[in-house]
Amino acid sequence: MYDLIIIGAGPAGITAAIYAARRKVKFLIIGMDVGGQVNWSSDVDNYPGIRDSTGIELTKKFYDHLNDYNIKIKQEEIIDVNKKGKIILVKTHKNVYETKTVIIASGKKPKKLEIKGEEEFLGRGVSYCATCDAPFYENKTVAVIGGGNSALEASLHLSKYAKKIYLMDINDKLGGEAYLKNKVLDEKKIIYINNMKLKEILGDKIVKELVYEREGVKKLKIDGIFIEIGLVSRSEFIKIVKKNKWGEIMIFRSTLSNEENLTSIPGIFAGGDVTDIPAKQIVVAAGEGCKAALAAFDYINKWK
Amino acid sequence: MYDLIIIGAGPAGITAAIYAARRKVKFLIIGMDVGGQVNWSSDVDNYPGIRDSTGIELTKKFYDHLNDYNIKIKQEEIIDVNKKGKIILVKTHKNVYETKTVIIASGKKPKKLEIKGEEEFLGRGVSYCATCDAPFYENKTVAVIGGGNSALEASLHLSKYAKKIYLMDINDKLGGEAYLKNKVLDEKKIIYINNMKLKEILGDKIVKELVYEREGVKKLKIDGIFIEIGLVSRSEFIKIVKKNKWGEIMIFRSTLSNEENLTSIPGIFAGGDVTDIPAKQIVVAAGEGCKAALAAFDYINKWK
Repeated sequence: MYDLIIIGAGPAGITAAIYAARRKVKFLIIGMDVGGQVNWSSDVDNYPGIRDSTGIELTKKFYDHLNDYNIKIKQEEIIDVNKKGKIILVKTHKNVYETKTVIIASGKKPKKLEIKGEEEFLGRGVSYCATCDAPFYENKTVAVIGGGNSALEASLHLSKYAKKIYLMDINDKLGGEAYLKNKVLDEKKIIYINNMKLKEILGDKIVKELVYEREGVKKLKIDGIFIEIGLVSRSEFIKIVKKNKWGEIMIFRSTLSNEENLTSIPGIFAGGDVTDIPAKQIVVAAGEGCKAALAAFDYINKWK
Repeated sequence: MYDLIIIGAGPAGITAAIYAARRKVKFLIIGMDVGGQVNWSSDVDNYPGIRDSTGIELTKKFYDHLNDYNIKIKQEEIIDVNKKGKIILVKTHKNVYETKTVIIASGKKPKKLEIKGEEEFLGRGVSYCATCDAPFYENKTVAVIGGGNSALEASLHLSKYAKKIYLMDINDKLGGEAYLKNKVLDEKKIIYINNMKLKEILGDKIVKELVYEREGVKKLKIDGIFIEIGLVSRSEFIKIVKKNKWGEIMIFRSTLSNEENLTSIPGIFAGGDVTDIPAKQIVVAAGEGCKAALAAFDYINKWK
């Protein structure tokens, strides 16, 4: 039986793992996606002490730090987390692990459009990560779906590569920060299409066209489509803990017993963007991962 | 009037200031002690992304990051924080500042033994900072008082300089992280004395001897004594917020209104080691500083 299983390998999970390695508890860290959302950021300049980094460079720094302790991240997909008596069972597509404690640090994932062609052309023209995939669209025509900060950032980032970017918004007007909106509206490569509804993605081996509604059904020839309509919590694999209406895992403090980052189920802790802490920031996720780890160590110490 | 005054320039205060600078709010950061407790750590290897750093190097990284935004830390001592209607007054030994919000991030300071000789020989053999003062004890004999992580770290750091270190603990067994304990027990220069009670520090111009009780009253010839028995909150300058029995500022969450790091007084937020969050770690302080800043920005936005 393990003392601890950490689910997720973004800033919260990796921080928890660094602390667990130093504390020499018997643990696993399981994550399909090392770095998590950090990888999607083109520039990170608000993680204190590390200036002017890209998201991918910062992920490498976290990963190398964990590697100093000879910890390998297990690449398995989590199917279920449940409890049998005091023991927690973590089921992946390969194994079932028994553990005294779990830290859920699985972060967020991109929201899907849920339209025809989206699944089919994933990785063949459909992307949820402009930072990762923009370089493939040098001199090509792409669409960015969305109208908030992440869609604005994706459009600006793509404008360094693509020759034309359609920014396609379901709303009347762009949301997001004024300063980003101004930059987008000033960029001649970006064409804003408001009040539209996406219907279907068409293609053969790769994406060729979008079908959308705007004063009738229309088609648009494009080489790639970036879906930037927001994020949802990666919490679907755990049914037994309390979540808020956005699917975020609710965490609690007990000042009496000096416990932190508790979920509604004893032995299961959570930290980072998957929780209901409103500040979705790298440094906050790292801090919360540490708090969850220290709380789990206390729980392990009291185990009888 | 300022939007925000940040009190303290350790990891929590500097993180809050980086976020405030990026958000372009009108703010001050006031602190006598840049880096705070980080400076007292010889080695820091648990701040994710920055490996094998000294405390002083990590402070420099935080400080340089803040400097990128041209922010100067005001070196003034805080005398009082109070509220007049909606406006908060921050009184220093030089000025009175008016502000909409305050973030208390003043951290902790070393606890005293409260024994004879401690005050008298301060700076003449009595030290609360092994990182700062270890180099003065090249080839000398020192005592470290305590048995937790900070005493372990101080002993290890001193072992690079001193020829002999007595690690003197009031408890039966060492506390702290397993990995540090093993390093201490492996170091032949460190002699562990458990179950002892310190009575007095003796000397003439400088420290010469310790008097302690352990199966009778005993004396020990030493050249220096490092007191590492824990910390107390630097919160004496603010009377109006609720504190716990250790003088830590109590912080609250409101999940309904999505607010974080609230104190009992609206407009006054807190983060880092001065608060009742039990995890006293650099990365946690940084994360909490960020959370307090985002909460303060919300409060400033709603200001009428």
